[in-house]
Amino acid sequence: MTERAICVIGAGLIGGSLMRAAEKAGRTVWGTAASADTAEQARADGFDVTTDTDAALRRAAEADALVVLCVPLPVLPEVLRRVDAVAPTCRLTDAVSVKVAVADDVARFAPRARYVGGHPMAGTSESGWAAGSATLFDGAAWVVAADDGLDLDVWRDLAELAWACGARVVPAAADEHDLAVARISHLPHLLAAVLAAVGAAGEDDLALSLAAGSFADGTRVAGTRPELVLAMCEGNRDALLGAVDDALGRLGAMRGALASTGGLAATVRAGHDGRQRWAAAREPQAVRVTLTGRAPLARLREIGRRGDVVVGWQ
Amino acid sequence: MTERAICVIGAGLIGGSLMRAAEKAGRTVWGTAASADTAEQARADGFDVTTDTDAALRRAAEADALVVLCVPLPVLPEVLRRVDAVAPTCRLTDAVSVKVAVADDVARFAPRARYVGGHPMAGTSESGWAAGSATLFDGAAWVVAADDGLDLDVWRDLAELAWACGARVVPAAADEHDLAVARISHLPHLLAAVLAAVGAAGEDDLALSLAAGSFADGTRVAGTRPELVLAMCEGNRDALLGAVDDALGRLGAMRGALASTGGLAATVRAGHDGRQRWAAAREPQAVRVTLTGRAPLARLREIGRRGDVVVGWQ
Repeated sequence: MTERAICVIGAGLIGGSLMRAAEKAGRTVWGTAASADTAEQARADGFDVTTDTDAALRRAAEADALVVLCVPLPVLPEVLRRVDAVAPTCRLTDAVSVKVAVADDVARFAPRARYVGGHPMAGTSESGWAAGSATLFDGAAWVVAADDGLDLDVWRDLAELAWACGARVVPAAADEHDLAVARISHLPHLLAAVLAAVGAAGEDDLALSLAAGSFADGTRVAGTRPELVLAMCEGNRDALLGAVDDALGRLGAMRGALASTGGLAATVRAGHDGRQRWAAAREPQAVRVTLTGRAPLARLREIGRRGDVVVGWQ
Repeated sequence: MTERAICVIGAGLIGGSLMRAAEKAGRTVWGTAASADTAEQARADGFDVTTDTDAALRRAAEADALVVLCVPLPVLPEVLRRVDAVAPTCRLTDAVSVKVAVADDVARFAPRARYVGGHPMAGTSESGWAAGSATLFDGAAWVVAADDGLDLDVWRDLAELAWACGARVVPAAADEHDLAVARISHLPHLLAAVLAAVGAAGEDDLALSLAAGSFADGTRVAGTRPELVLAMCEGNRDALLGAVDDALGRLGAMRGALASTGGLAATVRAGHDGRQRWAAAREPQAVRVTLTGRAPLARLREIGRRGDVVVGWQ
């Protein structure tokens, strides 16, 4: 494996955890924070973190480091403009939870960067540098974009960084990633919000006082900070519309059945089957791959579609 | 407290737990099981359980015992016909998760019974006699119907049985109970089913392989046995339609906002507020009451509406 240096833009939960994990794996790591407070905290913990984004990016250009953008989606254009000004052809990835919108931003604001999108699927309910941990990515899925035309050399860098952090690589086309997370991550947040709002809509406190198991589980992620949920869901608008329409269609059909025949069997059985299918999924197969030969990215995408993971080179 | 004898019809999870808890509390307990196998299991555990419903009910009539129906809603009419034939004026309650439909059945099939509806809100994912436990009701809410005109003497019996089992009594009108559980118990099951079906609807295994936290929590109750969910939800059709329409309206409005402005703030913030309101609810106040004086049942209903519980007599 190469020991490529890592420049992390943004020292929150994900960026801060990435710095810790990469340093623990022996990489040279530096980064930036949006506030002087956070930079000072990180420096007190022994990390090379500055608020001077240009300086960090200049160093990345000189060292041919992999730049990892760990900032919220709305801040990306501003950061990408600095990339284009200071390190225009750098090796570039990100940790944002949507992939098409980020790729569009990169194409627009830093079109010369050698960009391969990423999405480490790890997190806690907390945020900020202090909440970070070198073990956050242990055993997690790290989606690595595998669209045709990507720079294979940067793909290799990113896969090796993910493995160094203890994660497993799931290759996926950017749009397929966005459709998948719309269904299994963004829609759950929106249905939890709807359920919590309906549960709290009663005229008195009887309903909420009786709420327990099914309501507690079904609304748990409605407790997430609204800004995080909004950044995530609103950034995935197109894919999310499809998932919401699917849910609306099923809920509407169920409403019709309840009102007419009173029967809910179709809904309940389809849900039970879906949950069983998820619970019964086999362990992902751990695959070793090569980036040489014909259509390596197409082969990688097939691995992700099968539900398998990439763990090393052949 | 009186030490009223208890006749439990149905020796499944709830009925079996009730027999164990009531006997542990020093009550005289006998009951029935639908199958000879279950009756034999219960007898092997030292309980007086028969498959002869008429014999058990005859004994209840002679002893003026409290009869507790712990059978699924679809079986109720048949059991109530036996009540009307053998113990027509008995003290009667039930443990079914809807209250209006049961009251309607009682009025139709056993109209002379002294009936007060009940709903002990306890359960596990398992079922059957063997899954029962004397501690199942410890700390649980036991909703006791508090509609005007109910027999106060039977109300007292049922409250004292609930307390003897370690539960706290939540008084509520039958229709208010049904509206509340539609929102916080039945709707969660239906949204979980919709989410599980959408998550499993992808063309390949990428989405399910990435599903974790929010999907796992949001679909947990979709793993419940479909027959149990159907009996519960279909028996609460009218109240459930209102809750489903509320959810559909919110989801549809959110769909419109996502498609037009792309903004989800109203949905996400309302959900966050609802979850916070539930999580921040104060501990229920433990109230002691009297059944004498003016409008005792109206006073009881107010306690439930405030989110408080009844724990004993004044």
